[in-house]
Amino acid sequence: MRFKFSLLALLLEVIIIVLFGIFVEYDRSDASQENIYPLFQDVHVMIFVGFGFLMTFLKKYGFSGVGINMLIAALGLQWGTLVQGFWHMKGGKINVDIKSMINADFSTATALISFGVVLGKTSPVQMLILTILEITIFACNEHLVTEILQATDVGASMTIHAFGAYFGLAVTLVLYRPGLKNKHENEESSHHSDIFAMIGTLFLWLFWPSFNSAIARDETKAAINTYYSLAACAVVTFALSSLVDQRGKFSMVLIQNATLAGGVAVGTCADMSIYPFGAMCIGSIAGIISVLGFKFLTPFMASKLNIHDTCGVHNLHGLPGILGGIAGIIVTAMKEESRSTVHFTPEIQAAALGSTIGIALVGGVVTGGILKLPFLGQASDQNCFDDSVYWEVPEEEKLHEILSNNHDEHSRSEAMM
Amino acid sequence: MRFKFSLLALLLEVIIIVLFGIFVEYDRSDASQENIYPLFQDVHVMIFVGFGFLMTFLKKYGFSGVGINMLIAALGLQWGTLVQGFWHMKGGKINVDIKSMINADFSTATALISFGVVLGKTSPVQMLILTILEITIFACNEHLVTEILQATDVGASMTIHAFGAYFGLAVTLVLYRPGLKNKHENEESSHHSDIFAMIGTLFLWLFWPSFNSAIARDETKAAINTYYSLAACAVVTFALSSLVDQRGKFSMVLIQNATLAGGVAVGTCADMSIYPFGAMCIGSIAGIISVLGFKFLTPFMASKLNIHDTCGVHNLHGLPGILGGIAGIIVTAMKEESRSTVHFTPEIQAAALGSTIGIALVGGVVTGGILKLPFLGQASDQNCFDDSVYWEVPEEEKLHEILSNNHDEHSRSEAMM
Amino acid sequence: MRFKFSLLALLLEVIIIVLFGIFVEYDRSDASQENIYPLFQDVHVMIFVGFGFLMTFLKKYGFSGVGINMLIAALGLQWGTLVQGFWHMKGGKINVDIKSMINADFSTATALISFGVVLGKTSPVQMLILTILEITIFACNEHLVTEILQATDVGASMTIHAFGAYFGLAVTLVLYRPGLKNKHENEESSHHSDIFAMIGTLFLWLFWPSFNSAIARDETKAAINTYYSLAACAVVTFALSSLVDQRGKFSMVLIQNATLAGGVAVGTCADMSIYPFGAMCIGSIAGIISVLGFKFLTPFMASKLNIHDTCGVHNLHGLPGILGGIAGIIVTAMKEESRSTVHFTPEIQAAALGSTIGIALVGGVVTGGILKLPFLGQASDQNCFDDSVYWEVPEEEKLHEILSNNHDEHSRSEAMM
Repeated sequence: MRFKFSLLALLLEVIIIVLFGIFVEYDRSDASQENIYPLFQDVHVMIFVGFGFLMTFLKKYGFSGVGINMLIAALGLQWGTLVQGFWHMKGGKINVDIKSMINADFSTATALISFGVVLGKTSPVQMLILTILEITIFACNEHLVTEILQATDVGASMTIHAFGAYFGLAVTLVLYRPGLKNKHENEESSHHSDIFAMIGTLFLWLFWPSFNSAIARDETKAAINTYYSLAACAVVTFALSSLVDQRGKFSMVLIQNATLAGGVAVGTCADMSIYPFGAMCIGSIAGIISVLGFKFLTPFMASKLNIHDTCGVHNLHGLPGILGGIAGIIVTAMKEESRSTVHFTPEIQAAALGSTIGIALVGGVVTGGILKLPFLGQASDQNCFDDSVYWEVPEEEKLHEILSNNHDEHSRSEAMM
Repeated sequence: MRFKFSLLALLLEVIIIVLFGIFVEYDRSDASQENIYPLFQDVHVMIFVGFGFLMTFLKKYGFSGVGINMLIAALGLQWGTLVQGFWHMKGGKINVDIKSMINADFSTATALISFGVVLGKTSPVQMLILTILEITIFACNEHLVTEILQATDVGASMTIHAFGAYFGLAVTLVLYRPGLKNKHENEESSHHSDIFAMIGTLFLWLFWPSFNSAIARDETKAAINTYYSLAACAVVTFALSSLVDQRGKFSMVLIQNATLAGGVAVGTCADMSIYPFGAMCIGSIAGIISVLGFKFLTPFMASKLNIHDTCGVHNLHGLPGILGGIAGIIVTAMKEESRSTVHFTPEIQAAALGSTIGIALVGGVVTGGILKLPFLGQASDQNCFDDSVYWEVPEEEKLHEILSNNHDEHSRSEAMM
Repeated sequence: MRFKFSLLALLLEVIIIVLFGIFVEYDRSDASQENIYPLFQDVHVMIFVGFGFLMTFLKKYGFSGVGINMLIAALGLQWGTLVQGFWHMKGGKINVDIKSMINADFSTATALISFGVVLGKTSPVQMLILTILEITIFACNEHLVTEILQATDVGASMTIHAFGAYFGLAVTLVLYRPGLKNKHENEESSHHSDIFAMIGTLFLWLFWPSFNSAIARDETKAAINTYYSLAACAVVTFALSSLVDQRGKFSMVLIQNATLAGGVAVGTCADMSIYPFGAMCIGSIAGIISVLGFKFLTPFMASKLNIHDTCGVHNLHGLPGILGGIAGIIVTAMKEESRSTVHFTPEIQAAALGSTIGIALVGGVVTGGILKLPFLGQASDQNCFDDSVYWEVPEEEKLHEILSNNHDEHSRSEAMM
């Protein structure tokens, strides 16, 4: 991978810097944006710490979880600035300000969500390509949804969460590896890796009100709705997690993920007058759907549909994203919702949801096909979910392995006694 | 626990959502609250990351530390919104805004502080009940202190910290388990769990200026005082930690906890003109008291008074909370302090402190009695401080145990040689 | 160390509190500073969580990394308030406000950067003395650069980063220990300690735009430039990390450190009109320099120049700090840059860079000489990089050691078979 990866990454960075040199300027308008800077920082933490640490749950894949997440996001926010900016040029220039930085961070979320689907099964080279392709397609779909259709999706339930999830699911279907059908021995967590992942969960959970209000017209309402949706979702997730387990025990994977579904699902109508009551209903349903998805749908998809979803992204971003889109349809059907001169209708919202999922699936299949090109050099099945393939790992790892072999030997000798 | 926990949690969530549907509305007043949104986020991080990770210090109880903390806080903030809101209804409605979200987060801190006292010894079902009861009683006491007595306690040294500590201590006294008198083998930390706990410590320490200024009349003064109080407290804690150890070594439990006592103790008079000098005196005394409490008082209470305080909450929230209350009495006695038309007197401040501790103790005893009801199903003494009772834990844990048994065996064989 | 450390720490704290009592007052000016409070909190997180966790990468030195970092910063921010304040007294008083708290936090960064150079090789007593001396000298140099020379350095590439690095390198040269010439067995990371360090990396990386804009005249421009500089630097670092490794693997030490060089290097001209293009060029060059420094210069300095730099501070703060200073010279040479009535020239910028490095080196040599006084009690070479010298460590550590000895024994017996 030495030259493939580094030369591709350098090439992309050079191209991006040249395009920035040609097109990007500071926004000169007088509108102060100081008040959204804290929201930008919250979103920024979600992208790098939230998504990054959420993906450290695998016992031997933490370097890649948090490291490759950083790579994707750092590359993606530059590329996102460009492809989003091309749709809003003024005088042939892309103007950047705090709001465009928030949008650039948002754009990377789609690639990070898809990364969660294929975590452990793809190479860094593949992730560079996926990042560029997915963010490009995302920017086009976002333009279609918000500018052409003029639908509303302030918290991006559809354009980011559902999009990223179904894009990633399509990619993983195309990249399907029969050799991973039986659970890989490294595809599990350890006590410490699960606690690392909780760092990610909590920073996502805590700052989600900022995510949903960062570009909302009524920031306060969006923050309140998201706050209560997530709280209800978390309690319901704990209840369901215990209920669906035979011994009534909590499952870390559910607490790490399904507690966040309320933030996804309330996104589309976050700044509508759904009241905390409405938000909590949406959050509770999201929690239920997400838990049931992890428990029943993910194993089914893996075994029957050949769709292997490492992080269970479908249950955290996919289904709750669709729920968010549907909630948007219902709310706009029930009462008039408008922003300045634009009037939102359930038909438009439904069209936005449908086009988003369609474009995500088609884009994901095409991208998966490109990533399958043999010279991109995937790791062998054997080497999946293992940092040591792409990272220098500390010596102690090896010691540990010897120790456990040592143990196996002992168990065997004990068994022979 | 499967049905007990999940059905109780779902029942509580349904009741809360119904009450939200009936009572809760957006605040319609024009007052912009954008400027306190960053303070809300800081407090939010303290509640979930700060308290949560602070409680991951036990080597085998990290899932519960951070996980059950999240459950309590997510449930508590919804319930807190209601019980605090009932005291301030307008036209039969509870109006929520950013400030009420800060207050809701605050209310959960009481239950989380009490959770620290009983950490490892109670079941999730018990914690649900404790959360509901404690926050209800807290809201009544807070109303008494701030509305009826009209005392001042902006950083909540009394109403949150002392209240939560003495409530929890009363609970643990009632729930006393003679079987845990000798230190449980799992009631200790590991190198990694201690570092996880430092994540909690630091986010509490860093955002405490926001905690103390979030509802203060002079935010800047409150932030400055808290900043310097904590800095002095931290240096004093390091000094004392070394001084009280026979070999002069630092103790992680002290650095994790006593460094925070300065934030607790400066709370009541955080926005008074005590100057950084006064704040640093308060912080230094808090550090001294807290270290001495951990070193001498906690072992004494455990062995002689049958009060077992897992996290040493008495030294972090109890004693420094009382110190904060006393500092408030002294400062109001020394110079006139008033807020709009209200004048604070030392007598009123003393009454507030006394009533808070009295109500906390009585509330804690009653709550402890309820939690003792046999059908709530506590874990056996043997199973305390162990995640695997309430959580699915990764396989590796078992391996590790076998490995150490393996080691024991070896030690034995070596001993026999 | 019991009495030496604790009495010195208490003495320093008492002196500081007395000086605060005499000199420090609240700033009474009407200028609202609410809008910079979130920036203060971001910087605060960088100092304690960012620097602290970045230094937990050593497998057995995490308590000291995050703990002594907290001690230095807590002491340093108090002392920094005083020594920075003495240069700006009004009516014989030091006025504190949010901005002075930001500057106090900034001042501690110099000592923390130097701490990174000597990490694992110095005692807490030595670090107390270094903190007091370095922050005093820093405050004088900062006064020289910004008030007397009237150079610009808003992101403190020179006055903090280069200063802290060269000060620390001079200290470590004076304290050189031939016994550590061969890599100490504890001077390496573990899988978990590397992930802990990523917490530090990410919070530094994320909040660096706040660091560079906190005292900038054009906050938005500074935030934008830093955001894009860091993003380009991160991508380049990943590319180079793979390129310089024989097997093309990423190196955690590079990802943890070199990704941040873009924030350091863009500091001096963060609020100038360099456009994102210029910022990304600076960031990319910083990434290249930093990676090459880690790969080639640090081993060379250690083996040939007797300069042992534990964290590779020279590559993260030293060289990128100089790069930042040079970028400032070039930009001021290319176009007029001025702030209110002050006009910045390349000559002045060059003088600022030269004086900063000169004062840092001289200050570091003097400080190193003082720290070498024998009664300060350094740990023996054998005990370096080991928490258990200064901290009570959990029992499990010992078990682990026995286990691995156990393993060695087995390997030996296997070898004999």
